[in-house]
Amino acid sequence: MRTSRLAQLFFLATLASSAFAQSNAPALPSQLPGYRDFSTTEARWDRIFLAAPDARLAGEHLKTLTAEPHVASSPEDYKTAEYVARKFREAGLETEIVPYRVVLSFPIKVQFEATAPGGFSQSGPTPEHVDGDPSENDPRILPPYNASSASGDVTADLVYANYGRPEDFKHLVDDLHLDLKGKLLLVRYGTNFRGVKAFLAQQYGAAGILIYSDPADDGYVMGDPYPKGPWRPDTGVQRGSVGYIFEYPGDPTTPGIASVPDLLPAKRTPLDQAAASPRVLATAISYHDAAPLLQRLQGPVVPRNWQGGLPFTYHVGPGPVRVHLTVQESYDLHTIWDVIGKIPGTDADGEFVVAGNHRDAWVYGATDPSSGTASMLEAVHGLGALLKQGWKPRRTIYIASWDAEEEGLIGSTEWAEQHAAEMDHCVAYFNVDVSVTGPDFSAAAVPTLKQFIRDIAKEVPSPQGNSLYFAWQQTSAEAAARRHGTFSARQGNAEVENDVRVGDLGSGSDYSVFLQHLGVPSTDFGSGGPYGVYHSAFDDITWFTKFADPNFKLLQQQARVFGLEVLHMADADVLPYDESLYAKEIGAYLETARMKASQEDITLDWSAAATALQQFSSAAAAVSKQQQHPPTNPDALNHALRKAETDLLDPEGLPHRPWYRHVIYAPGEYTGYDAVVLPHLNEALDKRDAPEAQQGLTRVADALQRAAQTLSSVAK
Amino acid sequence: MRTSRLAQLFFLATLASSAFAQSNAPALPSQLPGYRDFSTTEARWDRIFLAAPDARLAGEHLKTLTAEPHVASSPEDYKTAEYVARKFREAGLETEIVPYRVVLSFPIKVQFEATAPGGFSQSGPTPEHVDGDPSENDPRILPPYNASSASGDVTADLVYANYGRPEDFKHLVDDLHLDLKGKLLLVRYGTNFRGVKAFLAQQYGAAGILIYSDPADDGYVMGDPYPKGPWRPDTGVQRGSVGYIFEYPGDPTTPGIASVPDLLPAKRTPLDQAAASPRVLATAISYHDAAPLLQRLQGPVVPRNWQGGLPFTYHVGPGPVRVHLTVQESYDLHTIWDVIGKIPGTDADGEFVVAGNHRDAWVYGATDPSSGTASMLEAVHGLGALLKQGWKPRRTIYIASWDAEEEGLIGSTEWAEQHAAEMDHCVAYFNVDVSVTGPDFSAAAVPTLKQFIRDIAKEVPSPQGNSLYFAWQQTSAEAAARRHGTFSARQGNAEVENDVRVGDLGSGSDYSVFLQHLGVPSTDFGSGGPYGVYHSAFDDITWFTKFADPNFKLLQQQARVFGLEVLHMADADVLPYDESLYAKEIGAYLETARMKASQEDITLDWSAAATALQQFSSAAAAVSKQQQHPPTNPDALNHALRKAETDLLDPEGLPHRPWYRHVIYAPGEYTGYDAVVLPHLNEALDKRDAPEAQQGLTRVADALQRAAQTLSSVAK
Repeated sequence: MRTSRLAQLFFLATLASSAFAQSNAPALPSQLPGYRDFSTTEARWDRIFLAAPDARLAGEHLKTLTAEPHVASSPEDYKTAEYVARKFREAGLETEIVPYRVVLSFPIKVQFEATAPGGFSQSGPTPEHVDGDPSENDPRILPPYNASSASGDVTADLVYANYGRPEDFKHLVDDLHLDLKGKLLLVRYGTNFRGVKAFLAQQYGAAGILIYSDPADDGYVMGDPYPKGPWRPDTGVQRGSVGYIFEYPGDPTTPGIASVPDLLPAKRTPLDQAAASPRVLATAISYHDAAPLLQRLQGPVVPRNWQGGLPFTYHVGPGPVRVHLTVQESYDLHTIWDVIGKIPGTDADGEFVVAGNHRDAWVYGATDPSSGTASMLEAVHGLGALLKQGWKPRRTIYIASWDAEEEGLIGSTEWAEQHAAEMDHCVAYFNVDVSVTGPDFSAAAVPTLKQFIRDIAKEVPSPQGNSLYFAWQQTSAEAAARRHGTFSARQGNAEVENDVRVGDLGSGSDYSVFLQHLGVPSTDFGSGGPYGVYHSAFDDITWFTKFADPNFKLLQQQARVFGLEVLHMADADVLPYDESLYAKEIGAYLETARMKASQEDITLDWSAAATALQQFSSAAAAVSKQQQHPPTNPDALNHALRKAETDLLDPEGLPHRPWYRHVIYAPGEYTGYDAVVLPHLNEALDKRDAPEAQQGLTRVADALQRAAQTLSSVAK
Repeated sequence: MRTSRLAQLFFLATLASSAFAQSNAPALPSQLPGYRDFSTTEARWDRIFLAAPDARLAGEHLKTLTAEPHVASSPEDYKTAEYVARKFREAGLETEIVPYRVVLSFPIKVQFEATAPGGFSQSGPTPEHVDGDPSENDPRILPPYNASSASGDVTADLVYANYGRPEDFKHLVDDLHLDLKGKLLLVRYGTNFRGVKAFLAQQYGAAGILIYSDPADDGYVMGDPYPKGPWRPDTGVQRGSVGYIFEYPGDPTTPGIASVPDLLPAKRTPLDQAAASPRVLATAISYHDAAPLLQRLQGPVVPRNWQGGLPFTYHVGPGPVRVHLTVQESYDLHTIWDVIGKIPGTDADGEFVVAGNHRDAWVYGATDPSSGTASMLEAVHGLGALLKQGWKPRRTIYIASWDAEEEGLIGSTEWAEQHAAEMDHCVAYFNVDVSVTGPDFSAAAVPTLKQFIRDIAKEVPSPQGNSLYFAWQQTSAEAAARRHGTFSARQGNAEVENDVRVGDLGSGSDYSVFLQHLGVPSTDFGSGGPYGVYHSAFDDITWFTKFADPNFKLLQQQARVFGLEVLHMADADVLPYDESLYAKEIGAYLETARMKASQEDITLDWSAAATALQQFSSAAAAVSKQQQHPPTNPDALNHALRKAETDLLDPEGLPHRPWYRHVIYAPGEYTGYDAVVLPHLNEALDKRDAPEAQQGLTRVADALQRAAQTLSSVAK
């Protein structure tokens, strides 16, 4: 790594460490239980809350929620909404079921026939099947498909395109000189969001993609397949939407506005003009169906890292395998149902907290999302216990059970778009999606809340007996050893060396609208393990109790994390934001971008950004002192803290995707799930567009200056 | 990496760069052809020599040599000896066929039966077979086996032990607490010498090993299998000896002495007392035979990096697969035949050069070793052209066609042991084994000769039209990119960053006795490519012309390299040894060892070694000046240069393996093929034995001091 005077500047600017974080110096996990002084009022509420979430009850929620397939807008989905609403009401929440009318796509006819010289012929898809799985043959299970695919009928030569990453397409076109126009591509799941695979295929002129799950990625190469082990069996298929949520999420016909039931049809963008709507055919298949096709491809042998786990040498094609792919989907308006529970706060200032989880599932959805819903319901159970003891939160709390997340984060996006005007009073959004697939805890957050979630992990016991924070440290140490030396270089995460890593928020779950469209500080968390049934019919209670969490203790743990997030944020006198860490991380992002520009010989003027960062960093340090010794009335301080987050939005949004307005974080347009930091700047650097990069850099500088000014106004 | 005063000392000691190397500043490869001043006498001989090796003739040699299977001591082997002798004589060499009587092991009965619950039963081995291969069903093909296996009959539970590396055994025993005593182990080929797998199995008390070729290592995961591509087909087996050549090579019953035909039987060590002779059963099988066994193993799932390319999840066992393994081998005295051709030199001082290649093959041996023999014969053709022009070399030249290399480097070891007393006059041994499997040139040498072989590569054209050196640079750059950051840390090769890498000599071919027993500076080289037929019946002329070298141009290139090595070394006024590079590399080896000791908290006294290295380095620099401006009679200088190499031998040899006497290089006792540098010191450090490590370090210091004194005596 090279350093320079400017680099030193960035790091000097961020050296003043967070006084806030220091004031929350971690107690030693080994002192658990009872390491915290439970004599304060806040700690007493914590203790009462922590006692309530119940593993057995969490298991019962899970069983109820996963009893039937419950895809968004189905009658079974509505039954889960009623169940969640009942549990909310039992806990004392003011609850309503909020409907939206949104475009959803369902399969009418999805099939393929493949032929190859020598009389080979195969048709599919093959139904998902393992011997003895109890969910076999449920007629309500949707056949495997990719929601939001275009509809059509194509016969073309097949080409293998590895993961469908930008570098994969470049290899096919630039190195192998293949013409992908009109071709059908066989791509494997993994490393990026499936919508990115479709998006790139579309950009390269392909007619469609068949996305399969290679055993090297979540099948027998990783471990024993279901039902013997937790990994994907041969017929298992990953369903999922290929909608371009990196353009904008939500109903593709209503970007930026809410799909309320009485929305005038004229307000809608026609689907064929919607930027989020794919123009290529896509369908998801199993490796049972993909292997015979892949085995018969000819043409060049693939590069070494394109070879998967199937027992033959992979070739690129094109052909001689020809595939006739038919995808017919319906794109109609359907009603979906968010369940919103409210606990009114005592504070007249109107600040509120939102915490949510989606409820709709591709099939049974034991891990995705019902593990999250079960955890959320036990968190609500804990909040109910507090209410029964007379507790009233300072800030209003909304607990949300979103619908139609799987089709494009629709329920959350529509609700937040509907309430966009009030969102400058929303002090945090806490998300949980898949809460449990195994014991390895992980979290992602804006830097403002990274220490916040670590502190909560210190207070929650793990099923192994020590604190969750301790267990998290163990997992992180192992993971760090595995990726040693690769991570920090990749993303310049300034704090990764010093503590358990809290990741950056990309996309793929319901926090997107809150953070990236509306500037609400957000977190997400989960607990992972060996997991090969994602979005298949096998993600059911049988799998869950055998491999993920047999006694539901992890669901209980996650309920405690989720509830404490809400409780601590709702009751805090002063918002527990760590602005200094934000400054430090942005400094690292800028330094990484500067090195990238330097490597690409792109000269930019970094001085305004360096100055703005220094101002932001100084103001953050000053505000930290205020947070430690707050004024009697902290309203102005809290208001400034919250506004500094909104200051990081740019009203114009990102180039070509104005819905995404955050200058620090966006979903990567070519990675999808992963965050791209400083998106305008970095995506321009990737395209070697110096003027555009300079503009992106200026917008970062402007945003930092706004935030610095906001914080300075209260930090005297 | 940490540095210290001592480290600086090492590097300061070696900073004085090689004046010799500077005097051979590389001409730019792009100036080829004609970049060298061909007006000097030496260059004129080079030019005449380079014109002679002929691709068509090389192809004819290859066809003749590979017409029949010709394992050591067979009648077909003797026919190849006669062919080689005839070609030597045609070129004008004084030629004799030199017989030895050595113990060789041949299969009498090798078979296995496997059973598992549920009625599974399988017996093998399955014969090697691919559709359409012309070598099918040759009755002279030995069935797949591992030479030097113990004989016996064992029925035991099977355990999968990955590559059979030390860390693999540690995982089974220390982490999984398996008792390997009496078990049969299924291990895969790769990463170490097969004899090491047997040696470790024996140390852990196992009864035997079945070694199979996993498709991840040289089969379909790497590329298309034969006959479609160059990689190993399902029934392909890697034959090979499991003899413990890292204890000593050659006839296992005559360590240190020559197995001449009239050797008294009483001089022989009984085989059951021979340290080089395995005590466990071993046999080689195909993945066609291994897969059904491996698939039925139960017990723990393997660690991620133990999973190979077969289409199921690997488990460790033990059992429930039980295997009944029978290995019956004969261990009789057989006659083998080295072919030795001589060109007498004009120098009365008695110095000579040896260049050799083995001739015996497990089956047809197109690449291994006949590609080397074909190259050698065309090098001899070139020397013959010189002789016809009246050329007489300054130093005597011996060209050797070794026998029984496959059984344990026997032909070379016996011949060199027979002539050990004269070996202080042998100024170099040049080896070639597999000369061609593809276009990627590589070389290994003592540091003294690393620049020597690079300079030769500058003079030889590659079939792509530019110099071999240029092609080598391209290959190296790609390889360096692949292993970026891993290599130098592993072995501290001081010069790897600055030029094409010339590796260190480990073991596995005929240079071992010359370098590691007798201190003769040695080189080895080859040209590699995709290659999955090693030691199988498919290593035949069909495979070779389809995948390795269709028009034999690479054989021609290698003939030129081999011949120029001989020519340059035989005719040099002053020996072209680069002692300064030796000092630099030893400095790097010492520094790496010092860091290892420091990491292990082993305190050693490094001062004597540092002082000796500095003396050696100074003397080397002074000698370099002498080499540039030699005295009229360079005999004393040459004598000192050669003696400095012998000074690096320790008469007592390594602990527990006295045959290996070189203090800088030995084959690794736990890696086999790879060199271990400073073997006494480093192996003691690996065992955390500080007193032994100090002794090893002292011996290095003593050897360096001897060499420094020798060089100083002529460097005034």
